[in-house]
Amino acid sequence: MSLFIRISIAVSMLAFAFAWWLNNWVKKIPSSNKRIAQVGGWIREGATTFLRREYSVLAKFAGVIAVIIFLFLPKPVWNNGITQNLHMALAYIAGTVFSAVAGVIGMRVATIANVKSAEAATKGIKPSFMAAFRGGAVMGMAVVGATLLGVSLVMQITGETSTLLGFSFGASSLALFAKAGGGIFTKTADISADLVGKVEMGIPEDDPRNPAVIADNVGDNVGDVAGMGADLFDSNVASMSAALVIAATLDAAAGGTDTINQAVVFCYAAAGLLASIIGVMLARMGKKGPTAALNNSTYVTTLVYAALTAAATHAFGFSWRIWCACVIGLAVGVIIGIASDYFTDDTKPPVHKVAKASAAGPAFTILSGISYGFISALPALVGIAAASLAAYNICLPLGKEYAMFGIAMAAVGMLSIVGMIISNDAYGPIVDNARGLAEMGNLGDDVLEITDQLDSAGNTVKAVTKGFAVAAAGLTVIALLGAFVSEVNEKVVELGLGVERLISGFNIMDPTVFFGMLIGAAVPAVFSAMLILGVDKNAQRMVSEIHRQFREIKGLKEGKAGVVPEYGKCIEIATNGAIKELIPAGLFTILITLAVGFIGGVQAIGGFLAGNIVTGLLLALFMSNSGGLWDNAKKYVEAGHEGGKGSPAHKAAVVGDTVGDPFKDTAGPSINTQITVVSLISSLAATLFLTTSLFR
Amino acid sequence: MSLFIRISIAVSMLAFAFAWWLNNWVKKIPSSNKRIAQVGGWIREGATTFLRREYSVLAKFAGVIAVIIFLFLPKPVWNNGITQNLHMALAYIAGTVFSAVAGVIGMRVATIANVKSAEAATKGIKPSFMAAFRGGAVMGMAVVGATLLGVSLVMQITGETSTLLGFSFGASSLALFAKAGGGIFTKTADISADLVGKVEMGIPEDDPRNPAVIADNVGDNVGDVAGMGADLFDSNVASMSAALVIAATLDAAAGGTDTINQAVVFCYAAAGLLASIIGVMLARMGKKGPTAALNNSTYVTTLVYAALTAAATHAFGFSWRIWCACVIGLAVGVIIGIASDYFTDDTKPPVHKVAKASAAGPAFTILSGISYGFISALPALVGIAAASLAAYNICLPLGKEYAMFGIAMAAVGMLSIVGMIISNDAYGPIVDNARGLAEMGNLGDDVLEITDQLDSAGNTVKAVTKGFAVAAAGLTVIALLGAFVSEVNEKVVELGLGVERLISGFNIMDPTVFFGMLIGAAVPAVFSAMLILGVDKNAQRMVSEIHRQFREIKGLKEGKAGVVPEYGKCIEIATNGAIKELIPAGLFTILITLAVGFIGGVQAIGGFLAGNIVTGLLLALFMSNSGGLWDNAKKYVEAGHEGGKGSPAHKAAVVGDTVGDPFKDTAGPSINTQITVVSLISSLAATLFLTTSLFR
Repeated sequence: MSLFIRISIAVSMLAFAFAWWLNNWVKKIPSSNKRIAQVGGWIREGATTFLRREYSVLAKFAGVIAVIIFLFLPKPVWNNGITQNLHMALAYIAGTVFSAVAGVIGMRVATIANVKSAEAATKGIKPSFMAAFRGGAVMGMAVVGATLLGVSLVMQITGETSTLLGFSFGASSLALFAKAGGGIFTKTADISADLVGKVEMGIPEDDPRNPAVIADNVGDNVGDVAGMGADLFDSNVASMSAALVIAATLDAAAGGTDTINQAVVFCYAAAGLLASIIGVMLARMGKKGPTAALNNSTYVTTLVYAALTAAATHAFGFSWRIWCACVIGLAVGVIIGIASDYFTDDTKPPVHKVAKASAAGPAFTILSGISYGFISALPALVGIAAASLAAYNICLPLGKEYAMFGIAMAAVGMLSIVGMIISNDAYGPIVDNARGLAEMGNLGDDVLEITDQLDSAGNTVKAVTKGFAVAAAGLTVIALLGAFVSEVNEKVVELGLGVERLISGFNIMDPTVFFGMLIGAAVPAVFSAMLILGVDKNAQRMVSEIHRQFREIKGLKEGKAGVVPEYGKCIEIATNGAIKELIPAGLFTILITLAVGFIGGVQAIGGFLAGNIVTGLLLALFMSNSGGLWDNAKKYVEAGHEGGKGSPAHKAAVVGDTVGDPFKDTAGPSINTQITVVSLISSLAATLFLTTSLFR
Repeated sequence: MSLFIRISIAVSMLAFAFAWWLNNWVKKIPSSNKRIAQVGGWIREGATTFLRREYSVLAKFAGVIAVIIFLFLPKPVWNNGITQNLHMALAYIAGTVFSAVAGVIGMRVATIANVKSAEAATKGIKPSFMAAFRGGAVMGMAVVGATLLGVSLVMQITGETSTLLGFSFGASSLALFAKAGGGIFTKTADISADLVGKVEMGIPEDDPRNPAVIADNVGDNVGDVAGMGADLFDSNVASMSAALVIAATLDAAAGGTDTINQAVVFCYAAAGLLASIIGVMLARMGKKGPTAALNNSTYVTTLVYAALTAAATHAFGFSWRIWCACVIGLAVGVIIGIASDYFTDDTKPPVHKVAKASAAGPAFTILSGISYGFISALPALVGIAAASLAAYNICLPLGKEYAMFGIAMAAVGMLSIVGMIISNDAYGPIVDNARGLAEMGNLGDDVLEITDQLDSAGNTVKAVTKGFAVAAAGLTVIALLGAFVSEVNEKVVELGLGVERLISGFNIMDPTVFFGMLIGAAVPAVFSAMLILGVDKNAQRMVSEIHRQFREIKGLKEGKAGVVPEYGKCIEIATNGAIKELIPAGLFTILITLAVGFIGGVQAIGGFLAGNIVTGLLLALFMSNSGGLWDNAKKYVEAGHEGGKGSPAHKAAVVGDTVGDPFKDTAGPSINTQITVVSLISSLAATLFLTTSLFR
């Protein structure tokens, strides 16, 4: 295995080198517009300030958790000796640090690429596209490079898969807060800016008179770039960790020093990163426009990945069944992405029907959007169900334990091209920012048309990548459930609890399991409600601040030359509010998991995780897709349908869009992370739940 | 046991006699206002027409299902001989007929009691209350009497619990369509009437100029009376059937002719009906107003029930542990009702916060309402989880099989006072109608104030009874899952499939189970989306019709004397639309269950049912409570808060109320029935899934 770990470390270094090259490529794009430079500077500064504040709070939080981990995990330190607990605590800290660093790198480049993309748009759509895409790709490379490097180092140094779960938990717990915090920040700013600017005063989006406009652009970066990066870093680490935990059990069962199953995981993950590098390098915008360019680069990466892993499977004598499971995961990921696209694409019936329903008033916008959102979950859930069933059955001839490994490898396969997915995803907020900068820098209507076109491609691709991310999280957590069983059984043996405590799963008919399942099912709903209420409260604060500025700053409303709103105040409100509101939701998630574990033991936790996964996936898909659908329905109406801008249908569509904002950018994508966090806590605390629980 | 069956039949006869007495009591209340008589006649006629149309479609549907059942269930008739299949088909038909008859009886009395209650209001609030309450109680008695009679007769005649599941499926399949159809009808009419009348034209609710006003009042009867009655008949039969299926297994295992476990079920169910009769008889409105009167009668019934069953347990030597399980179920039901009340009561924070958020626009009404709805699911789910865990563990010392029986008895306990619950619930639409009649009959402001007060009590109590209904359905379906396992094992033995096919449950780690679980989780979401879209489409049709009438009928808008809108047209649209839209949602539910069973076999079905239960309960609670919350937030604003009527907050609150209408009265309560239906289909088709499935 150590060969493959070394290969993985080498490939991750290549990714960092490529990121560095992309970074310099973007930086070298000429820019000269002073106004844009100034506004771009404000955005960068705001984003940096937020991240610094957020990370300093999270550092304290992580410090406390690290101490708790050191004291109690995997076993109380006084029973276990220092080494293992220290490894665990350090791995946890490393997970948080890697996540934070990847987020900061991505965010810094994004806040340069936005300026470059805006100015490049004066030269045409292609240079503007390339600036944004390659800026986004830096994030993609940084995240996947960090995943591979981190996982490799932990395994190289400790050789313990339990410690790997500590690393993964570090990544997850940071992601939980980064995603939720960034999501609250971005939607607070977005909603408030729109509500006062567009709805009340009728001034255009990104109008520099609007005190929340900089906060809005900062939000795109901290929510959609840094938050999303942390989210996918988390999923990626979790899928590798789950696969490695199961692989280690298999390797141990096979006896001896053969570690072929762990080798497969590293090899396929490294191949995914290589494929993403190739995909990013080859990406160009052709005649078919930016959407096709983004989607084509995904398809190219997929094919390259399938070919590379096939070659590796042949060369190293891996099992073709495992390869099949991996490719099935990838294929289903792409299919689910396409299905999500159907429900949010403005050329497809759902968007048209919601736009039409809007003519009857906002209640119908909401009702139809919620309905299509609910329906949109079906194909994705069927896809995940079918993928896991297929992966399992394909690997079943290798043995029952290999069948669960097959599911884990399907998750690895689905996440293999995550480097490419993040590049596409980070492209979105960069061009969104570029559009704002072009508006504020008065670059003219031709340039705005170009940035609008790029922005629209970003929105369309976002739906695909979000469907993909949810599906990947789904398979990952199924695999994590498998990892949980492996962990529990390992601990049972270690603690000498007796064979009768070994578990082969969780029986739904056991009311302890059912008890956990019902409570687990409620968690994603409550968690997302808390985030949405957070946005709601915070937006109310910011709206009052915007009103105050328009009232008190003379000449602002009229756009008098030289009168500048106090952008910083709005950024501060968004920052403080986000940090204040994210803590309760995160704590609720962690504490209820511990409560269920200490009441019902590992059986209740098994049910809890299952309930959490099913409703979590359902709600994540529903919220992401409804949100995207409302966003595009509004744009569709604005493009002149159902009465166009200013019509009653438009007003109703704006209500839908506002409801959809925290759905798709705060709650929906945070649920992914919430699911992963509870899965990892459960695995880490397996020993405690085994030895200390009320009911068994 | 046959003693207890005879007692049950006697008690059910007593209930029918009491219903007859109540019916005559209501009919004897004097009424003289011709205008009210005329409008009341229209409502009665509209409701009768709808039910006739609906039942004639459902009769054909039930006929087809009965033939299918005869041919295939429990086993293909050519392998099984005629008797058992014929019993099953006839029991199915009996289930549909009993449900329909109970619905018709309740609905007929309700459409008399509304007139009586309206006129009695001229004499004061107490007579008006009594007319409405006793009118509603007829429905309560009819439904519970029919349950006890039907179940007793099936057991007396066939002695087969499998056949009982056929009867239960008859009740369920009719309820599925009656609830969904009635729900679509009532909300189509309600939304359309409000949208054109209140929002566009600013005329009061129940203004006779509004062409949809009669349809709206008809809707209250067909949706909230007949539909709700079918729903609770279904839950009640299902809970008794599940308990009897498990009891029969226990009795058979105990050997000999002892049938004490089945006797307990009949005895406790009969006690519940007796308690409800006493509760209804004692109900009077005191100084504390109508809400307290309704709630007190529930509490009285609960106490009487606990006492009666304790006496029976002592007298007949039943196990006190089973009694405890039963009482726990009842207590938790009441607690969950109270928790639901917290989220929808207009004196509690959630309603105030949603009203406050409305001042910032409709998007915030929606976001905050959805959030509190999500949160409201937590206490109920924890309650159900705790009740089932407690019931199980209390009965565990009797043996593991008795533990599952304990859960079934908790469900029976929760549903024991359903006669009282229905009386309270049917009271709501009757006073709602009475309010409309008082308005249309020009009975004056004093009378309207009384009917408003009664109506408001109806809304408050509705939240409690809905929480109760969902909780009861939750425990019932857990018990049905147990019944499914009993059925499968019975069939395995019968078919001689070998001991290795016997099941002790469903392992979440088995991907076939997980496959079913993910798909089952999506079903309630898609089902409710289809119903909501049905309301949406149908309301659009009706809105155009209302516009047409105001445009084409001269003098209507101005309220010229003698000009009457074409009420019948609106009733026709609501009727046709409801019947058209309910079919696909119902078929989808049935077909996807069969698809999962034939693909993945009984293991996949186990997962499917579990997934279905958890998301079904979550969504049912969320939708019912959000809907009630928005309704009351609107009323709270109308009472003068946050700017009062006509303010922006009011407009936003109206949007929330409109979104909430199909949530709380169409989709939410239909999910209960949807869950029961799939559970019953699964049990009935157990043999087919065992012998004919793709994966095992």
